[in-house]
Order: sequence, then C-alpha cells, then structure tokens
Amino acid sequence: MITEEILKSVFKPHNLKWRTAITKVEPNRLITRGYLQEELVGNTSFSDMVYLLVKGKMPSKSESKMLESVLVSFCDHGVTPPSTQSARIMASTGSPLHACLAGGLLAFGKNHAGAIENSMHLLQEGVARTPPEESLDDTARILVDEFMSRQEKIPGFGHRYHNADPRAPRLMELAREMECLGRHGELALSIESLLHKSKNIRMNIDGANAGILSDLGFDWRLGSGIFMIGRLPGILAHTYEEISRESPFRKFFHIEEIYYDGKE
Amino acid sequence: MITEEILKSVFKPHNLKWRTAITKVEPNRLITRGYLQEELVGNTSFSDMVYLLVKGKMPSKSESKMLESVLVSFCDHGVTPPSTQSARIMASTGSPLHACLAGGLLAFGKNHAGAIENSMHLLQEGVARTPPEESLDDTARILVDEFMSRQEKIPGFGHRYHNADPRAPRLMELAREMECLGRHGELALSIESLLHKSKNIRMNIDGANAGILSDLGFDWRLGSGIFMIGRLPGILAHTYEEISRESPFRKFFHIEEIYYDGKE
Amino acid sequence: MITEEILKSVFKPHNLKWRTAITKVEPNRLITRGYLQEELVGNTSFSDMVYLLVKGKMPSKSESKMLESVLVSFCDHGVTPPSTQSARIMASTGSPLHACLAGGLLAFGKNHAGAIENSMHLLQEGVARTPPEESLDDTARILVDEFMSRQEKIPGFGHRYHNADPRAPRLMELAREMECLGRHGELALSIESLLHKSKNIRMNIDGANAGILSDLGFDWRLGSGIFMIGRLPGILAHTYEEISRESPFRKFFHIEEIYYDGKE
Amino acid sequence: MITEEILKSVFKPHNLKWRTAITKVEPNRLITRGYLQEELVGNTSFSDMVYLLVKGKMPSKSESKMLESVLVSFCDHGVTPPSTQSARIMASTGSPLHACLAGGLLAFGKNHAGAIENSMHLLQEGVARTPPEESLDDTARILVDEFMSRQEKIPGFGHRYHNADPRAPRLMELAREMECLGRHGELALSIESLLHKSKNIRMNIDGANAGILSDLGFDWRLGSGIFMIGRLPGILAHTYEEISRESPFRKFFHIEEIYYDGKE
Repeated sequence: MITEEILKSVFKPHNLKWRTAITKVEPNRLITRGYLQEELVGNTSFSDMVYLLVKGKMPSKSESKMLESVLVSFCDHGVTPPSTQSARIMASTGSPLHACLAGGLLAFGKNHAGAIENSMHLLQEGVARTPPEESLDDTARILVDEFMSRQEKIPGFGHRYHNADPRAPRLMELAREMECLGRHGELALSIESLLHKSKNIRMNIDGANAGILSDLGFDWRLGSGIFMIGRLPGILAHTYEEISRESPFRKFFHIEEIYYDGKE
Repeated sequence: MITEEILKSVFKPHNLKWRTAITKVEPNRLITRGYLQEELVGNTSFSDMVYLLVKGKMPSKSESKMLESVLVSFCDHGVTPPSTQSARIMASTGSPLHACLAGGLLAFGKNHAGAIENSMHLLQEGVARTPPEESLDDTARILVDEFMSRQEKIPGFGHRYHNADPRAPRLMELAREMECLGRHGELALSIESLLHKSKNIRMNIDGANAGILSDLGFDWRLGSGIFMIGRLPGILAHTYEEISRESPFRKFFHIEEIYYDGKE
Repeated sequence: MITEEILKSVFKPHNLKWRTAITKVEPNRLITRGYLQEELVGNTSFSDMVYLLVKGKMPSKSESKMLESVLVSFCDHGVTPPSTQSARIMASTGSPLHACLAGGLLAFGKNHAGAIENSMHLLQEGVARTPPEESLDDTARILVDEFMSRQEKIPGFGHRYHNADPRAPRLMELAREMECLGRHGELALSIESLLHKSKNIRMNIDGANAGILSDLGFDWRLGSGIFMIGRLPGILAHTYEEISRESPFRKFFHIEEIYYDGKE
Repeated sequence: MITEEILKSVFKPHNLKWRTAITKVEPNRLITRGYLQEELVGNTSFSDMVYLLVKGKMPSKSESKMLESVLVSFCDHGVTPPSTQSARIMASTGSPLHACLAGGLLAFGKNHAGAIENSMHLLQEGVARTPPEESLDDTARILVDEFMSRQEKIPGFGHRYHNADPRAPRLMELAREMECLGRHGELALSIESLLHKSKNIRMNIDGANAGILSDLGFDWRLGSGIFMIGRLPGILAHTYEEISRESPFRKFFHIEEIYYDGKE
C-alpha cells in the first residue's frame, strides 16, 4: 500500500534541489544564519550582515569595523571606471535602474575587478606556502622576482591614475589599529617595500584590501564580490545623477571614427 | 591667430560630457562629496556613505542608523526570490561571479522590486497632497478606497509568504525610537490600520521601508536601488553557496513539461 | 487507498508550472512548433525560424524574405550606439563574451530601442482606429498634428546622425516588391509625406521596420526583440574586434572631469 | 603659429580611441565591411551578414547555407536550459524585454555554452598539431585516451537529455552535402567513432557545430557567440510566452527548502 511516507519519499527527490544554509523561510519567521531577522535589524551593522551572510557567523567587533572600512574604501572613483561609464551610458538610453546597476556590474571583468581577487589569491598562496614560524620577506622576494622575470605587474600594486593611492596606507593603518593585520597584510607590506625601493611602485587599494580581507578569512574568490557590494552605492549615485542631471540619450564622446583596414 | 584659449575652447565642447558632482579624481587625491576618501575610510559607516553618495551630504547620526537598519532588513529571503534563483542558476552554469550578481539584479522587475518604489511614490504623493496641518487618516482612507474599488493591491501591504511580516513592525518601532518617523511613515501606519481592520492585511517590509526612506528624504525612484544595495550581500552569499556546495550545471527542477496548444 | 493516479495528481500540481508551446523535449526528439528540429535544420532559413518560434507558424516565402531584410537592416551602426559602446567597454575589462553581449543588450533602453516599439505601437493603434475602407491620410494628419502640438518627435522619423537614413527607403521598396506593404506601412509613408513637406524630416530605419513588422503581424511589444536579434551579430563583431585588436583595459576617452556643485 | 593642422593634431590623440573596421558611419551613408548597407539589405541573407560582420568578408554560397543551418540548429530546447529559465523568471518579475534577453545570455556560463567553445578549441588544436598528410584517427585516439585517463568528458560528445542527439547527424550530413566537411569535422567524426564503440556515446549538437564552425574558419573564442545568436530568437519566444500566457510573479517551483547546517 502506498503510505503517506512513501508518498513523501516519492515526492521529495524532485524537490531536494533548492536548499540553503543562509536563510530559513517560514510563515512570519525569517531565520538568517541562526538569527531571527527582526532581531538582526537595528542590532547589527551592515558589515556584520555581510560577514554573517557570507561566512555564516558573526564577526568580532573589530572584524566588523575593519570590513566596514574596506567596504567604504571601495565607494567611488568618479566617472573613470568602466563600470560607472557603462551604468551611465545605459541610464542615458532609458534603461531602468536595476538594468543600469546590473550593467555596471558586468564591467567588473578581470582587468577591472580581477586585481583584488588575483592579489588575494597571491597572498593566500604565499602565506600558505610559508611555514608559520618563517618570515614572509623571503616569500615576498621570490614573488617579486618571479613577476619581474615574467615582466608582469603584481596585482594590488601600482595604479593607472595614482602613483601613491591615498586609500592604501589609510587602510593598512586602520588594520594595525584594529589589530586586524595578520600574515597576509604583512606579506603585502613586504612586497610593497621591495617594489617601492626598486621601482617606486606602491600598494594600491586592491593590494591593501586583499591583505585585509584575507586576514579576515575571506576566500579569494569572494574578493570582487566584496568590491561590488562596496561600489554599488557609487554606481547608484552615478545612475541617479545621469537620470536627474543630464539630457536623455546624450552623446558621450565626440567620435572621430577611424575606419581601419578590415582584414579579420 | 589661434591662441591657446581658442584651442581650449575648440577642444572642450567635445569633452564636457563626462562630469560629476560625486567624486573628484586627481592624482593621489579622491574627494567624494567634498570629503577626502582617506578621511572617510575608518570614520564613516557604510550607511553614511550610501547617504553621502546619493544625497550629497552627511546624514545625522540617527538618520544613518535608520538607513543602516533599512539596508540590513533587505538582507535575504532564502531561495524564494526570483533574483536569488536567477543568480544561482547562472552560477551553476559556470558564469563568473560578477555576471551572477548582475543576473540577480536583472530579476528586480516591477513585480519584485517595484513594490517599494510604488509604495514610496504613493506615500510621497499622499503626503504632498495633504496640507501639513491636516491629519493623514483621510488621505489613507481615500487611497484605500481607490485601490479597493479598482480591486488592486496597495503596494507595501500584504505578502505572498507571510501574513504578518516580522520585519515591518520592527522597522517601524526603530523609526519611532530613532525619531525618524515622519508624515510618510504615519501615512503608511494609517493605511495599515484600515487594511488590517477590513481585510486582515498588514504592512510588509516594502511598506515599512517605503515610509522610512521617504521620511529620510529619498526620491521614490531610488527605492529599488536601496533595496538592491541591501540585498546584494545575500545574492553574493547564495552565489558562493551554489559554487561551493552544489554540483555544477545541476538540474534545478523536475520539469514535467506541458506542451500546450501552440497557437500564438 | 492511495493509488498511482492519486499519487500523480498529488505530485503534479507542483510541477505544472513549467509549460511551453514552443518546443517539446523528449529523449532524442525535439519538436519545435510541431516540426522535428532535424527536419528544420537545412530546410528553413534563420528568418523562418524567428517567425516560427515567435509566431507559432511558418511564414510564407515572401514574409520570410521580408523579415530577413528587416533583420539584416539592423546589423550594425559602427561604434556610435550605446549598446556597442557598452559591450566594448565590458570586453576591455576582460568580461567574458556572454557578459559583453548581455551588457550590450542592457543598453537597449527606451531612448535607444524604444523608437521601434513606440513606432509600431503608434502605427498599430492608428490602423486599428481607422475603418478599413477609409484612407489613412486623415489618421496621419491627426497623429502628426498631435505630436507637433505636444512638441514631441514622432517615433520612427528623423535620426541624430542621418537626415535621410538610406536604409528606410530601401526597406520600403523591398516591402513593395515582396508585396508585404500593408496598412501599417502605408500609414508610415503617409506620416513621412507630411513630415517631409512641413519639416524636411524623413522616415528612419525604425519607422520603416515598424511599418513592415506590423504588416507582418508582429505585436509591437516584440519590436525591440527583433531589433536585438538583428543587432547581436554586430555586437559580437565589435566585442571580438575589441578583444583581438585593442589593448586590454584601455581608456576610452580623455576624461576632463567637471566637478560641479554637488547639491543633490 | 597654431595652424588648423596643428589644432587637429592636438585634438586627435584623445579621440583616436574609438575605431573600427566593421562599419563606417557617415551622414546618410553606412558602409559595412566595404558594402553599402542599402545594398546589403534585400540581397544578403542573415547568415551572410553574420559571416561578413565577424569575419570581414562575404561567405561563399555553401558556407552561408552551412552557417545558416548551424544557427537554425541552436534555435530552442524547450524550458530545460538555464538561459531560458533565467529569462522567464525575469520576465515574470516584470523586467523589461531587453533585460530578460540579457539575463538569458548571462546564463551561458562555461558549463552551458562552454562545450561548443571547448570542443572547437580541442578540434582546432588537434588539427593544427596533425600534419596535413596524416590521418586524424591517431589524433582522435590520443585525445580520447587522454580524456578517459583523466576521467573527463570530451566536450561535444554525450548529452544530459539525449543519448542520440538528432541534430548532430543531420548537421554532419548537411556539411557533407554542402562540401563544408573539412579536417575539423573529420576529427569530430573520428572521435565519435571511438566513443561510440567503447562507451556508446555519440556526438552532440555542440560537437557537430564545433567541427563545422571550425571548418568554416571561425576562431574557437567565437563559438558561444554564434550559439547565442542562434538561440536569442528562442529566448525571445519564451520571454514573450511568459509575458503573454502566464500570470505575473508566479512561483516557479514548490520550494521545499532544506536548511542545512550552515557551516561555511
């Protein structure tokens, strides 16, 4: 006989697919990572929530403060970033707000947002391969030498607009103050010291945040995600500015089009 | 003779296009809404930054705290929202992180995120049309009657999963505590009171945040943008969970496809 | 007793959701709008497929030829369209191909792609409101007068780069040759005649295609979709050109940033 | 003295950035890859245009016919593909058409659309490394052995819904008829022959099209782009079906949410 139990077991396999550890949704009850949402609202900061959602547990007070500084540091870079330009171009065509924000994020390709992930990856690999009792200076030297021999830029160092990115030292200073500076941040500082001496290149915001986020325990694959959370308010502000202060469907550049020889 | 000045004037018209009041970018100097970024980092909260970027000035302490609560309240709703489902489906296909987050935002259509904007629009219109010395109860009644006569739902009230959304009263309570409850929030409460008596329908999270954001002075066209800022960490958490805990390119549903009569 | 039938009926309601009249998928058998796909491949043109998929039946030979001309006419407009600019900016950031194409489409806002939909809407309304035995000249005059009194541009007429869009007369000529010119195309021609006399404004590609697609029986809400199908190859070509011929993460413009007074 | 020439030379460097070999835009004149657009419209097929835009020259008649068959073969796969599901979910939220199509494309991740690119890459490498006078059977064997030893699937062979994808043999048959079968298609057939004998696995649509597109001279990095051009009409049809035949913001599945242990 087909019992209710069998019925359920037949029914279940097809529905086992959607599962999550993030939020449990019940009628009139939303539990995120073990906390009732109505208790989170008003008692936790936004950076607490980011940490809780992604890492599954509450940060310490200083971890939360540190993450907040990281998020704030990503806020905006004027009209120079491709993500901002894309969002404004779309806004100008009359695309709705959510499509403009989405379009902005689509410009976070590896050349734009990849630096922070690559920098985190590098620092996490570097620290993982250095025995905990050993200094990171040797690791830094090996890494710098390798990149130099390949004539590649080390992700997280140097900037196309700034030769001394003012956000990086500020972030490292805060990391020290909040006691959030660990092995990854140290490795980043060690690399900077070598690059500064030999090539006058300094750590940029990606390098600083890569060290800090790694010390906060974030998987390098999440780096550009944190960047996007921090930057979305800036993209919103630009989209809104475009809509409210510029004329629709304006031309963004004087195009003096060069029609070059069309061989594939 | 063509002087430097003429040269500049000829040159400029084509480049006047990219302008912004948000961030001034100079070598080694980033000034956002009048503040040096290195001074913002570490001294301002994330919600300060959202307010500053979008509204062009710093919020008061309680405004900032209130906005933070709003952002936190949007954090996550499990795997039920279309935006979360879209992001996870894309993640499963191997789309990179930034494309999944963008894809999530593309599902903030008017039926999903429109409620908060429509609710803000309604409250802002309602308050604007009520002389400041008059009670909002009459306005509430007129609005409720009009929607009921059209057999339409009032945006910001009722929920398809919850009949008493636990986030809404918590937010209104905080608004009261932080002295952020103004005419818009009052109108929302007035509408709820009528709807609750007549139809047992309560304010949902969108209605509560619509009232609060309106009282904080946000243009209704920004409502879904604030929602997306608050939700992006949740979408990131789901995307990461999909990548790290589920098998790639999994089937999301048992599709028992119905092939109905194909007349257009 | 719970029989297999009951079991199925219990099971079904949750799975009835995904249904389609477009393609029936069975193991080793794909039936699109009633045709086996292996019989469609090699026997039908691309425009046949577009028509079949969207409208649920095969077009006549001349309808198919006409639709193909419409699709070809949308092919490309150099680097001037916002959609092309967006896709190239994203490609330059290292975003993958599918994200660049998606990003290109996000710039089809109402100011960019809306013209064809608005033009179709206008022509379809105009024709629907004119009794079939009556001339469309009066309708044309009423429409032109109304837009002029509102000082608005009529969608489908005039162009910001061309004062005589060469694609429009060619398309109308083909429509005549292929006997695809119906009431909607006639109304468009009638409007053009009035605008040309009074303001030297001519039909543009959107106006021509709006007339033709309406005469082919397409719902105006599909207009921008047909445009996007026609334009996607151009966006692909530009994305590929960007990747293969330009340096990554290049600056797209000399930004002479104007930092204007930041009042909201 | 600053002459007009100097003026221009000063002016130019900042505007040299936007250049293209695809379409030259002049007032009332659009020249694509050397052809006036008004002469292309009506005289060239859609697949001619795809080939011309991407490869910079006109295809032969049989190349064009072959490419058209490839495009048609990608048309639709019911509601099973993640791209179709994403587009429909977005349409249901009320996202506008262009955002739904964009969202559909964002689901063309490497697990969904990557197969055709990987298959093209494999065949192009395989052929490039085999001296032209040598048989491809040895190359096929080496490739199959390598993938088997790594316990990986060979891209372009096997399908999760079909064990004998009906589109693949049809495409290969057409390639033979149209004399478009070259070394890449032969290598694909050779691999299939080995896989079929040893594991009863057959070529799928991606494998067939990978061989054909490679023989038509397409760079493997364009594979998913061609796929997306072919599939966009299907996504449009589904989006339109969702809008016109389903209720807005419907639930797509019965979510029996499993809240698993939330350790990161």
